[in-house]
Amino acid sequence: MFGMRARVALAEKGVEYEFREENLANKSQFLLESNPIHKKIPVLIHNGKPICESLIIVEYIDEVWKDKSPLLPYDPYQRAQARFWSDVIDKKVSIAGKGIWSTKGEEQETTKKEMIDALKLFEGELGDKRYFGGDDFGFVDVALIPFYSWFHVYETFGNFSIEENCPKLIEWAKRCMEKDSVSKSLADPNKVYEFIVGMRKMYGLD
Amino acid sequence: MFGMRARVALAEKGVEYEFREENLANKSQFLLESNPIHKKIPVLIHNGKPICESLIIVEYIDEVWKDKSPLLPYDPYQRAQARFWSDVIDKKVSIAGKGIWSTKGEEQETTKKEMIDALKLFEGELGDKRYFGGDDFGFVDVALIPFYSWFHVYETFGNFSIEENCPKLIEWAKRCMEKDSVSKSLADPNKVYEFIVGMRKMYGLD
Repeated sequence: MFGMRARVALAEKGVEYEFREENLANKSQFLLESNPIHKKIPVLIHNGKPICESLIIVEYIDEVWKDKSPLLPYDPYQRAQARFWSDVIDKKVSIAGKGIWSTKGEEQETTKKEMIDALKLFEGELGDKRYFGGDDFGFVDVALIPFYSWFHVYETFGNFSIEENCPKLIEWAKRCMEKDSVSKSLADPNKVYEFIVGMRKMYGLD
Repeated sequence: MFGMRARVALAEKGVEYEFREENLANKSQFLLESNPIHKKIPVLIHNGKPICESLIIVEYIDEVWKDKSPLLPYDPYQRAQARFWSDVIDKKVSIAGKGIWSTKGEEQETTKKEMIDALKLFEGELGDKRYFGGDDFGFVDVALIPFYSWFHVYETFGNFSIEENCPKLIEWAKRCMEKDSVSKSLADPNKVYEFIVGMRKMYGLD
Protein backbone atom coordinates (compact mmCIF):
# COMPACT_ATOMS: atom_id res chain seq x y z
CA MET A 1 0.00 0.00 0.00
CA PHE A 2 2.91 2.32 0.61
CA GLY A 3 4.26 2.01 -2.91
CA MET A 4 0.79 2.56 -4.32
CA ARG A 5 0.59 5.92 -2.56
CA ALA A 6 3.52 7.20 -4.60
CA ARG A 7 2.05 5.79 -7.81
CA VAL A 8 -1.36 7.39 -7.21
CA ALA A 9 0.26 10.76 -6.43
CA LEU A 10 2.45 10.65 -9.57
CA ALA A 11 -0.58 9.68 -11.68
CA GLU A 12 -2.65 12.52 -10.18
CA LYS A 13 0.09 14.94 -11.21
CA GLY A 14 0.40 13.37 -14.65
CA VAL A 15 4.08 12.59 -14.10
CA GLU A 16 5.50 9.73 -16.16
CA TYR A 17 7.84 7.43 -14.33
CA GLU A 18 9.71 4.19 -14.62
CA PHE A 19 8.45 1.56 -12.18
CA ARG A 20 10.92 -0.93 -10.76
CA GLU A 21 9.51 -3.82 -8.79
CA GLU A 22 11.46 -5.18 -5.83
CA ASN A 23 11.64 -8.72 -4.52
CA LEU A 24 11.39 -7.99 -0.80
CA ALA A 25 12.75 -11.45 0.04
CA ASN A 26 15.89 -10.59 -1.94
CA LYS A 27 16.28 -6.82 -2.00
CA SER A 28 18.35 -5.26 -4.75
CA GLN A 29 21.62 -3.47 -4.07
CA PHE A 30 19.93 -0.45 -5.63
CA LEU A 31 17.21 -0.44 -2.94
CA LEU A 32 19.70 -1.00 -0.10
CA GLU A 33 21.82 1.91 -1.32
CA SER A 34 18.83 4.19 -1.96
CA ASN A 35 17.24 3.63 1.45
CA PRO A 36 20.08 2.47 3.73
CA ILE A 37 18.24 3.48 6.92
CA HIS A 38 14.98 1.55 6.48
CA LYS A 39 15.76 -0.67 3.46
CA LYS A 40 12.07 -0.44 2.50
CA ILE A 41 9.98 0.46 -0.50
CA PRO A 42 8.84 2.84 -1.84
CA VAL A 43 11.79 4.96 -2.88
CA LEU A 44 11.26 7.73 -5.42
CA ILE A 45 14.35 8.61 -7.44
CA HIS A 46 14.12 12.14 -8.80
CA ASN A 47 17.01 14.13 -10.25
CA GLY A 48 19.20 11.18 -9.25
CA LYS A 49 18.36 11.55 -5.56
CA PRO A 50 16.32 9.10 -3.46
CA ILE A 51 13.30 10.19 -1.40
CA CYS A 52 12.02 7.62 1.14
CA GLU A 53 8.91 7.01 3.25
CA SER A 54 5.61 7.07 1.40
CA LEU A 55 3.93 10.10 2.99
CA ILE A 56 7.14 12.11 2.64
CA ILE A 57 7.28 11.07 -1.02
CA VAL A 58 3.67 12.14 -1.60
CA GLU A 59 4.33 15.52 0.01
CA TYR A 60 7.50 15.90 -2.08
CA ILE A 61 5.55 15.12 -5.26
CA ASP A 62 2.93 17.67 -4.23
CA GLU A 63 5.61 20.34 -3.68
CA VAL A 64 7.61 19.67 -6.86
CA TRP A 65 4.63 19.38 -9.23
CA LYS A 66 2.61 22.00 -7.43
CA ASP A 67 0.62 23.45 -10.30
CA LYS A 68 -1.52 20.42 -11.09
CA SER A 69 -4.00 18.68 -8.72
CA PRO A 70 -2.81 20.10 -5.39
CA LEU A 71 -3.01 17.38 -2.74
CA LEU A 72 -2.47 19.30 0.50
CA PRO A 73 -4.82 22.24 1.10
CA TYR A 74 -3.48 25.79 1.31
CA ASP A 75 -4.62 26.65 4.84
CA PRO A 76 -2.08 25.68 7.55
CA TYR A 77 -4.75 24.23 9.88
CA GLN A 78 -6.27 22.14 7.09
CA ARG A 79 -2.76 20.99 6.11
CA ALA A 80 -2.08 19.94 9.70
CA GLN A 81 -5.39 18.03 9.73
CA ALA A 82 -4.51 16.23 6.48
CA ARG A 83 -1.10 15.27 7.88
CA PHE A 84 -2.73 14.15 11.13
CA TRP A 85 -5.24 11.81 9.47
CA SER A 86 -2.58 10.37 7.15
CA ASP A 87 -0.48 9.64 10.20
CA VAL A 88 -3.48 7.93 11.85
CA ILE A 89 -3.63 5.58 8.84
CA ASP A 90 -0.02 4.53 9.50
CA LYS A 91 -0.44 4.28 13.26
CA LYS A 92 -3.80 2.48 13.35
CA VAL A 93 -5.18 1.12 10.04
CA SER A 94 -1.86 -0.21 8.78
CA ILE A 95 -0.90 -1.91 12.04
CA ALA A 96 -4.36 -3.44 12.64
CA GLY A 97 -4.40 -4.60 9.02
CA LYS A 98 -1.21 -6.56 9.44
CA GLY A 99 -2.55 -8.03 12.67
CA ILE A 100 -5.66 -9.41 10.96
CA TRP A 101 -3.78 -11.63 8.51
CA SER A 102 -0.65 -12.40 10.55
CA THR A 103 -2.23 -13.59 13.81
CA LYS A 104 -4.98 -15.94 14.92
CA GLY A 105 -7.36 -16.59 17.82
CA GLU A 106 -7.79 -13.90 20.44
CA GLU A 107 -5.00 -11.71 19.07
CA GLN A 108 -6.71 -11.68 15.68
CA GLU A 109 -10.07 -10.78 17.25
CA THR A 110 -8.43 -7.84 19.04
CA THR A 111 -6.80 -6.48 15.89
CA LYS A 112 -10.05 -6.97 13.95
CA LYS A 113 -11.84 -4.83 16.53
CA GLU A 114 -9.03 -2.26 16.30
CA MET A 115 -9.41 -2.21 12.51
CA ILE A 116 -13.17 -1.65 12.68
CA ASP A 117 -12.67 1.12 15.24
CA ALA A 118 -9.98 2.72 13.06
CA LEU A 119 -12.07 2.55 9.89
CA LYS A 120 -15.03 4.04 11.76
CA LEU A 121 -12.85 7.03 12.63
CA PHE A 122 -12.39 7.57 8.89
CA GLU A 123 -16.09 6.96 8.22
CA GLY A 124 -16.77 9.78 10.70
CA GLU A 125 -14.06 12.08 9.35
CA LEU A 126 -15.34 11.60 5.80
CA GLY A 127 -18.91 12.41 6.82
CA ASP A 128 -20.87 13.55 3.79
CA LYS A 129 -17.85 14.85 1.91
CA ARG A 130 -17.05 13.55 -1.56
CA TYR A 131 -13.40 13.01 -0.66
CA PHE A 132 -11.37 13.45 2.52
CA GLY A 133 -9.98 16.48 0.73
CA GLY A 134 -13.53 17.88 0.34
CA ASP A 135 -14.75 18.31 -3.22
CA ASP A 136 -11.34 17.33 -4.56
CA PHE A 137 -9.24 14.20 -4.14
CA GLY A 138 -6.41 15.11 -1.75
CA PHE A 139 -3.59 14.01 0.52
CA VAL A 140 -5.62 11.77 2.87
CA ASP A 141 -7.35 10.18 -0.12
CA VAL A 142 -3.95 9.29 -1.61
CA ALA A 143 -2.78 7.94 1.75
CA LEU A 144 -5.84 5.75 2.40
CA ILE A 145 -7.07 4.48 -0.97
CA PRO A 146 -4.30 1.85 -1.45
CA PHE A 147 -5.71 0.00 1.55
CA TYR A 148 -8.85 -0.65 -0.53
CA SER A 149 -6.79 -3.28 -2.39
CA TRP A 150 -6.35 -4.99 0.97
CA PHE A 151 -10.00 -4.85 2.13
CA HIS A 152 -10.66 -8.29 0.62
CA VAL A 153 -7.78 -9.72 2.69
CA TYR A 154 -8.99 -8.03 5.89
CA GLU A 155 -12.59 -9.17 5.36
CA THR A 156 -11.69 -12.75 4.45
CA PHE A 157 -9.21 -13.46 7.22
CA GLY A 158 -11.08 -11.29 9.76
CA ASN A 159 -14.46 -12.71 8.72
CA PHE A 160 -16.31 -9.41 8.74
CA SER A 161 -17.79 -6.92 6.29
CA ILE A 162 -16.29 -3.45 6.03
CA GLU A 163 -19.33 -2.25 4.09
CA GLU A 164 -21.67 -3.24 6.96
CA ASN A 165 -19.56 -1.22 9.40
CA CYS A 166 -18.53 1.66 7.15
CA PRO A 167 -20.87 2.05 4.15
CA LYS A 168 -19.75 5.60 3.34
CA LEU A 169 -16.13 4.52 3.23
CA ILE A 170 -16.95 1.90 0.60
CA GLU A 171 -18.86 4.48 -1.44
CA TRP A 172 -15.83 6.76 -1.17
CA ALA A 173 -13.47 3.98 -2.30
CA LYS A 174 -15.65 3.22 -5.33
CA ARG A 175 -15.74 6.94 -6.14
CA CYS A 176 -11.92 7.05 -6.00
CA MET A 177 -11.72 3.98 -8.26
CA GLU A 178 -13.55 5.92 -10.96
CA LYS A 179 -10.42 8.03 -11.28
CA ASP A 180 -7.81 6.67 -13.71
CA SER A 181 -5.02 7.82 -11.39
CA VAL A 182 -6.34 5.42 -8.77
CA SER A 183 -7.67 2.45 -10.77
CA LYS A 184 -4.46 2.22 -12.82
CA SER A 185 -2.19 2.46 -9.77
CA LEU A 186 -3.85 0.06 -7.35
CA ALA A 187 -3.01 -3.63 -7.05
CA ASP A 188 -5.62 -6.26 -7.92
CA PRO A 189 -7.25 -7.37 -4.62
CA ASN A 190 -7.06 -11.01 -5.77
CA LYS A 191 -3.31 -10.77 -6.25
CA VAL A 192 -2.94 -9.22 -2.80
CA TYR A 193 -5.06 -12.09 -1.43
CA GLU A 194 -2.90 -14.74 -3.13
CA PHE A 195 0.25 -13.06 -1.80
CA ILE A 196 -1.15 -13.13 1.74
CA VAL A 197 -2.20 -16.78 1.43
CA GLY A 198 1.47 -17.49 0.70
CA MET A 199 2.66 -15.31 3.59
CA ARG A 200 0.32 -17.07 6.03
CA LYS A 201 1.71 -20.45 4.96
CA MET A 202 5.21 -19.11 5.52
CA TYR A 203 4.16 -17.90 9.01
CA GLY A 204 2.68 -21.35 9.71
CA LEU A 205 -0.85 -19.91 10.15
CA ASP A 206 -2.61 -22.25 7.72
CA MET B 1 10.39 15.32 24.53
CA PHE B 2 7.40 15.70 22.28
CA GLY B 3 5.96 18.63 24.22
CA MET B 4 9.38 20.28 24.27
CA ARG B 5 9.46 20.27 20.47
CA ALA B 6 6.41 22.52 20.35
CA ARG B 7 7.86 24.80 23.04
CA VAL B 8 11.21 25.16 21.24
CA ALA B 9 9.44 25.94 17.94
CA LEU B 10 7.18 28.55 19.53
CA ALA B 11 10.18 30.12 21.27
CA GLU B 12 12.16 30.20 18.00
CA LYS B 13 9.28 32.09 16.40
CA GLY B 14 8.96 34.43 19.38
CA VAL B 15 5.33 33.40 19.94
CA GLU B 16 3.98 33.86 23.46
CA TYR B 17 1.81 31.04 24.72
CA GLU B 18 0.08 29.74 27.81
CA PHE B 19 1.55 26.45 28.98
CA ARG B 20 -0.77 23.92 30.60
CA GLU B 21 0.82 20.91 32.23
CA GLU B 22 -0.99 17.57 32.13
CA ASN B 23 -0.96 14.79 34.68
CA LEU B 24 -0.63 11.83 32.33
CA ALA B 25 -1.80 9.44 35.05
CA ASN B 26 -5.04 11.43 35.28
CA LYS B 27 -5.60 13.20 31.97
CA SER B 28 -7.84 16.27 31.91
CA GLN B 29 -11.16 16.31 30.11
CA PHE B 30 -9.64 19.15 28.09
CA LEU B 31 -6.86 16.90 26.77
CA LEU B 32 -9.23 14.00 26.04
CA GLU B 33 -11.52 16.31 24.08
CA SER B 34 -8.66 18.07 22.26
CA ASN B 35 -6.95 14.86 21.15
CA PRO B 36 -9.65 12.15 21.22
CA ILE B 37 -7.77 9.87 18.80
CA HIS B 38 -4.45 9.54 20.62
CA LYS B 39 -5.20 11.18 24.02
CA LYS B 40 -1.57 12.30 24.14
CA ILE B 41 0.40 15.48 24.66
CA PRO B 42 1.38 17.82 23.12
CA VAL B 43 -1.69 19.58 21.79
CA LEU B 44 -1.36 23.12 20.49
CA ILE B 45 -4.55 25.16 20.72
CA HIS B 46 -4.52 28.00 18.20
CA ASN B 47 -7.54 30.06 17.17
CA GLY B 48 -9.56 27.72 19.39
CA LYS B 49 -8.63 24.65 17.36
CA PRO B 50 -6.42 21.76 18.51
CA ILE B 51 -3.41 20.57 16.51
CA CYS B 52 -1.93 17.21 17.59
CA GLU B 53 1.27 15.20 17.09
CA SER B 54 4.51 17.03 17.79
CA LEU B 55 6.10 17.08 14.31
CA ILE B 56 2.78 18.16 12.77
CA ILE B 57 2.58 20.92 15.39
CA VAL B 58 6.12 22.11 14.60
CA GLU B 59 5.35 22.19 10.87
CA TYR B 60 2.10 24.06 11.59
CA ILE B 61 4.00 26.62 13.68
CA ASP B 62 6.52 27.00 10.86
CA GLU B 63 3.74 27.60 8.32
CA VAL B 64 1.68 30.03 10.43
CA TRP B 65 4.60 32.13 11.67
CA LYS B 66 6.56 31.83 8.48
CA ASP B 67 8.37 35.15 8.44
CA LYS B 68 10.64 34.57 11.44
CA SER B 69 13.26 31.80 11.81
CA PRO B 70 12.11 29.41 9.06
CA LEU B 71 12.53 25.83 10.25
CA LEU B 72 11.98 23.80 7.10
CA PRO B 73 14.20 24.73 4.14
CA TYR B 74 12.69 26.10 0.93
CA ASP B 75 13.89 23.41 -1.49
CA PRO B 76 11.48 20.41 -1.79
CA TYR B 77 14.29 17.84 -1.66
CA GLN B 78 15.81 19.43 1.43
CA ARG B 79 12.33 19.59 3.01
CA ALA B 80 11.82 15.89 2.33
CA GLN B 81 15.21 15.17 3.91
CA ALA B 82 14.33 17.18 7.02
CA ARG B 83 11.01 15.34 7.33
CA PHE B 84 12.78 12.02 6.79
CA TRP B 85 15.34 12.55 9.55
CA SER B 86 12.71 13.83 11.97
CA ASP B 87 10.71 10.67 11.29
CA VAL B 88 13.84 8.57 11.96
CA ILE B 89 14.01 10.18 15.41
CA ASP B 90 10.48 8.95 16.16
CA LYS B 91 11.00 5.51 14.65
CA LYS B 92 14.46 4.78 16.10
CA VAL B 93 15.80 7.16 18.79
CA SER B 94 12.52 7.52 20.65
CA ILE B 95 11.72 3.79 20.70
CA ALA B 96 15.26 2.73 21.66
CA GLY B 97 15.25 5.43 24.35
CA LYS B 98 12.18 4.00 26.01
CA GLY B 99 13.68 0.52 25.78
CA ILE B 100 16.77 1.57 27.71
CA TRP B 101 14.94 2.63 30.84
CA SER B 102 11.92 0.33 30.68
CA THR B 103 13.64 -3.03 30.21
CA LYS B 104 16.52 -4.97 31.71
CA GLY B 105 19.01 -7.72 30.88
CA GLU B 106 19.40 -8.79 27.28
CA GLU B 107 16.47 -6.71 26.03
CA GLN B 108 18.07 -3.62 27.52
CA GLU B 109 21.43 -4.45 25.91
CA THR B 110 19.71 -4.77 22.53
CA THR B 111 17.93 -1.42 22.81
CA LYS B 112 21.13 0.23 24.05
CA LYS B 113 22.90 -1.00 20.91
CA GLU B 114 19.97 0.25 18.82
CA MET B 115 20.24 3.65 20.49
CA ILE B 116 23.98 3.93 19.81
CA ASP B 117 23.42 2.89 16.17
CA ALA B 118 20.60 5.43 15.84
CA LEU B 119 22.60 8.27 17.39
CA LYS B 120 25.55 7.43 15.12
CA LEU B 121 23.25 7.93 12.13
CA PHE B 122 22.66 11.46 13.37
CA GLU B 123 26.37 11.96 14.12
CA GLY B 124 26.98 11.08 10.45
CA GLU B 125 24.12 13.19 9.11
CA LEU B 126 25.33 16.19 11.14
CA GLY B 127 28.88 15.83 9.84
CA ASP B 128 30.70 19.13 10.17
CA LYS B 129 27.58 21.27 9.96
CA ARG B 130 26.75 23.70 12.73
CA TYR B 131 23.15 22.48 12.90
CA PHE B 132 21.20 19.76 11.12
CA GLY B 133 19.60 22.68 9.28
CA GLY B 134 23.06 23.83 8.12
CA ASP B 135 24.17 27.25 9.33
CA ASP B 136 20.78 27.81 10.91
CA PHE B 137 18.84 25.92 13.55
CA GLY B 138 16.04 24.08 11.73
CA PHE B 139 13.34 21.42 11.75
CA VAL B 140 15.53 18.41 12.60
CA ASP B 141 17.25 20.42 15.33
CA VAL B 142 13.86 21.18 16.90
CA ALA B 143 12.86 17.52 16.59
CA LEU B 144 16.03 16.09 18.16
CA ILE B 145 17.22 18.56 20.78
CA PRO B 146 14.56 17.66 23.42
CA PHE B 147 16.16 14.21 23.66
CA TYR B 148 19.24 15.92 25.09
CA SER B 149 17.27 16.28 28.35
CA TRP B 150 17.00 12.47 28.33
CA PHE B 151 20.65 11.69 27.55
CA HIS B 152 21.44 11.49 31.29
CA VAL B 153 18.68 8.86 31.70
CA TYR B 154 19.90 6.85 28.70
CA GLU B 155 23.54 6.98 29.86
CA THR B 156 22.77 6.11 33.47
CA PHE B 157 20.41 3.20 32.90
CA GLY B 158 22.24 2.01 29.77
CA ASN B 159 25.66 2.45 31.41
CA PHE B 160 27.35 4.03 28.41
CA SER B 161 28.65 7.42 27.29
CA ILE B 162 26.98 9.16 24.36
CA GLU B 163 29.91 11.58 24.09
CA GLU B 164 32.36 8.69 23.59
CA ASN B 165 30.24 7.35 20.73
CA CYS B 166 29.02 10.62 19.24
CA PRO B 167 31.26 13.56 20.21
CA LYS B 168 29.94 15.86 17.46
CA LEU B 169 26.37 15.29 18.57
CA ILE B 170 27.24 16.46 22.08
CA GLU B 171 28.97 19.54 20.67
CA TRP B 172 25.84 20.20 18.60
CA ALA B 173 23.59 19.82 21.66
CA LYS B 174 25.72 22.26 23.65
CA ARG B 175 25.60 24.69 20.73
CA CYS B 176 21.80 24.43 20.68
CA MET B 177 21.68 25.02 24.45
CA GLU B 178 23.34 28.41 23.90
CA LYS B 179 20.09 29.50 22.27
CA ASP B 180 17.48 30.91 24.66
CA SER B 181 14.71 29.24 22.65
CA VAL B 182 16.22 25.87 23.55
CA SER B 183 17.62 26.35 27.05
CA LYS B 184 14.38 27.94 28.31
CA SER B 185 12.19 25.23 26.76
CA LEU B 186 14.04 22.06 27.73
CA ALA B 187 13.37 20.08 30.89
CA ASP B 188 16.06 19.77 33.55
CA PRO B 189 17.83 16.40 32.98
CA ASN B 190 17.78 15.76 36.74
CA LYS B 191 14.00 16.12 36.85
CA VAL B 192 13.66 13.74 33.91
CA TYR B 193 15.93 11.33 35.76
CA GLU B 194 13.85 11.52 38.96
CA PHE B 195 10.68 10.97 36.93
CA ILE B 196 12.17 7.85 35.33
CA VAL B 197 13.39 6.52 38.69
CA GLY B 198 9.73 6.68 39.76
CA MET B 199 8.54 5.03 36.54
CA ARG B 200 11.03 2.17 36.92
CA LYS B 201 9.77 1.53 40.45
CA MET B 202 6.21 1.46 39.10
CA TYR B 203 7.32 -1.02 36.40
CA GLY B 204 8.99 -3.17 39.09
CA LEU B 205 12.44 -2.73 37.53
CA ASP B 206 14.26 -1.55 40.69
